[in-house]
Amino acid sequence: MHTAEYPSITRDEAALLARTILTAAGFAAPHVAVMSRNMLDAQEQECHSHGLYRLILCSRAARQGGVDPQAMPVISDAAAGLVRADAQGGCSLLAFEQSLDMLTRKARQTGLAALAISNCYHYSALWWEVEQLAAQGFVGLAMTPTHPYVAPFGGTVPLLGTNPLAFSWPRPDGSPPYSFDFATSAAARGEVELKARTGEALPEGWSLDAEGNPTTDAEAALNGALLTFGGHKGSAISTMIELLAGPLIGEVAGYQTAPAGTDPARRATHGELILAFDPKVFGADFSGAEALFDQIIGTGARLPSQRRQTAGAASANAGKMKIEAGLLAELRRLAEA
Amino acid sequence: MHTAEYPSITRDEAALLARTILTAAGFAAPHVAVMSRNMLDAQEQECHSHGLYRLILCSRAARQGGVDPQAMPVISDAAAGLVRADAQGGCSLLAFEQSLDMLTRKARQTGLAALAISNCYHYSALWWEVEQLAAQGFVGLAMTPTHPYVAPFGGTVPLLGTNPLAFSWPRPDGSPPYSFDFATSAAARGEVELKARTGEALPEGWSLDAEGNPTTDAEAALNGALLTFGGHKGSAISTMIELLAGPLIGEVAGYQTAPAGTDPARRATHGELILAFDPKVFGADFSGAEALFDQIIGTGARLPSQRRQTAGAASANAGKMKIEAGLLAELRRLAEA
Repeated sequence: MHTAEYPSITRDEAALLARTILTAAGFAAPHVAVMSRNMLDAQEQECHSHGLYRLILCSRAARQGGVDPQAMPVISDAAAGLVRADAQGGCSLLAFEQSLDMLTRKARQTGLAALAISNCYHYSALWWEVEQLAAQGFVGLAMTPTHPYVAPFGGTVPLLGTNPLAFSWPRPDGSPPYSFDFATSAAARGEVELKARTGEALPEGWSLDAEGNPTTDAEAALNGALLTFGGHKGSAISTMIELLAGPLIGEVAGYQTAPAGTDPARRATHGELILAFDPKVFGADFSGAEALFDQIIGTGARLPSQRRQTAGAASANAGKMKIEAGLLAELRRLAEA
Repeated sequence: MHTAEYPSITRDEAALLARTILTAAGFAAPHVAVMSRNMLDAQEQECHSHGLYRLILCSRAARQGGVDPQAMPVISDAAAGLVRADAQGGCSLLAFEQSLDMLTRKARQTGLAALAISNCYHYSALWWEVEQLAAQGFVGLAMTPTHPYVAPFGGTVPLLGTNPLAFSWPRPDGSPPYSFDFATSAAARGEVELKARTGEALPEGWSLDAEGNPTTDAEAALNGALLTFGGHKGSAISTMIELLAGPLIGEVAGYQTAPAGTDPARRATHGELILAFDPKVFGADFSGAEALFDQIIGTGARLPSQRRQTAGAASANAGKMKIEAGLLAELRRLAEA
């Protein structure tokens, strides 16, 4: 089914669904508020994998003990350029929200500052966080490890996470920021799961089977390993993300974690690292950046995230968002249960 | 000719060649010292593209006005987490060397700090800089734009630089750091130039011809555009490097530059951005990082840069380094001229 044919719901109805389902799953009110806002924004921007679908996954994780729905983050001023947020096993978003002021205050003073979130359950798309930094005039860079699904380049078994990397650069005159956010695996695991369900073959170069041989069979890939994007270079960047959002901040690497309910010996929570640069302190040339974007578009290329940002503006304008019919039915059932 | 068959010269002879040639090209003594050390280290590590071969390119750039061989960098304390170094049209390495103490002092105080080098002639491999940070116990990340050779994903004409990215993580017990350093283009431009000389075909996916069509012809690629590594993801990272080491620090983007002597309307110099993280401030778990490296090796993968680092240790041990015979003859001629 093409997105254009999806039914729509109002933001108010979507918010009510989210509030009802998350509250029933035991999430404390501050978590419900920030998680709802995050999922609604993603749904409005037609980022379906990180939109209201996550209500189901987050509720399940709360039941399975993968996330503590009542945990309150502990924020600390660790150094002139470093905010630490211990999410205490709760969702990463509340830790981010409660740290944002301290992070931007530090960046204004030092030029750049880091937010190290530890012991967090992480389900959300990173663009949501870096674009909040951009909305306040900061350049944002964020990364987090995920559970081990990806073989390092030259290796044959899953070890690295799909380890997303996101970046956002503020633009003048109310333009949405220049942003990107992608998995450092050849494809997101959700894409492979979707193709396994439909029986569609994977493109070459995405995955290995359980014996370590290249495969285009999605089921075999799920039992084997994804590959990184961009060969050895993507693998090196993925490893850097493991290090910076793991051991650097005193946290585990992705291979030491597992989805909630799958392995009692491994945690479902891990770390996240977010950097904020204050362009004013760096003496940034915003018109130079705009000229670069014009040049990029002039070569025939598109800026990343434009489709998502355009969809978000259209949804906000219309006061409603598209949602897949089966998902909507399931969420309405869940909300009435 | 395979590297194993290369003749060797002692570090003393290599140093004398470098000193003689750079001095004759007009470089001031502090530039000669740091550039020689950089090129000798690269040559020892069998990083031939950034070793003594650069004596020829740097001398030529000095003659053509692409680099001011007498320029002395101006270093300033711009903020609690930011060092600025204006290279004044000189080589980046002296600016880096003279800023390193201030950068690490700031990182110790703030947790992480940035060094923004502007108006620099940049010829050197970035691993040399981030590995100096790692040798002092810091995590280093460095990036710089180059001249426009690369089409953004979806575009058909060269605009982005080959924009290298380098990272280094310190390891205990005298082990060389975990490092990577690579162009964000599908291949380094030097590789394509080499294949153009030998007539060898390029792999698919490296390049476009002047009409914007995919080509495996190296000559056509040099007249067209390289592609980024990893499709739209590599293109996004390359653009981020343009922004962070360009407009963020008040510098030009790569497309506004050109190699010395090719275009009077465009500068040969540009910016570089280096970040230093102090793992002590971040509460790093070094044994966790070592366990991750063990796991990576356990999957059958290799750590990046190991071949280079092993060659460097062997060269240092032997007190001599390998050099291609034709290059050695040319350098000896240059040194006697």
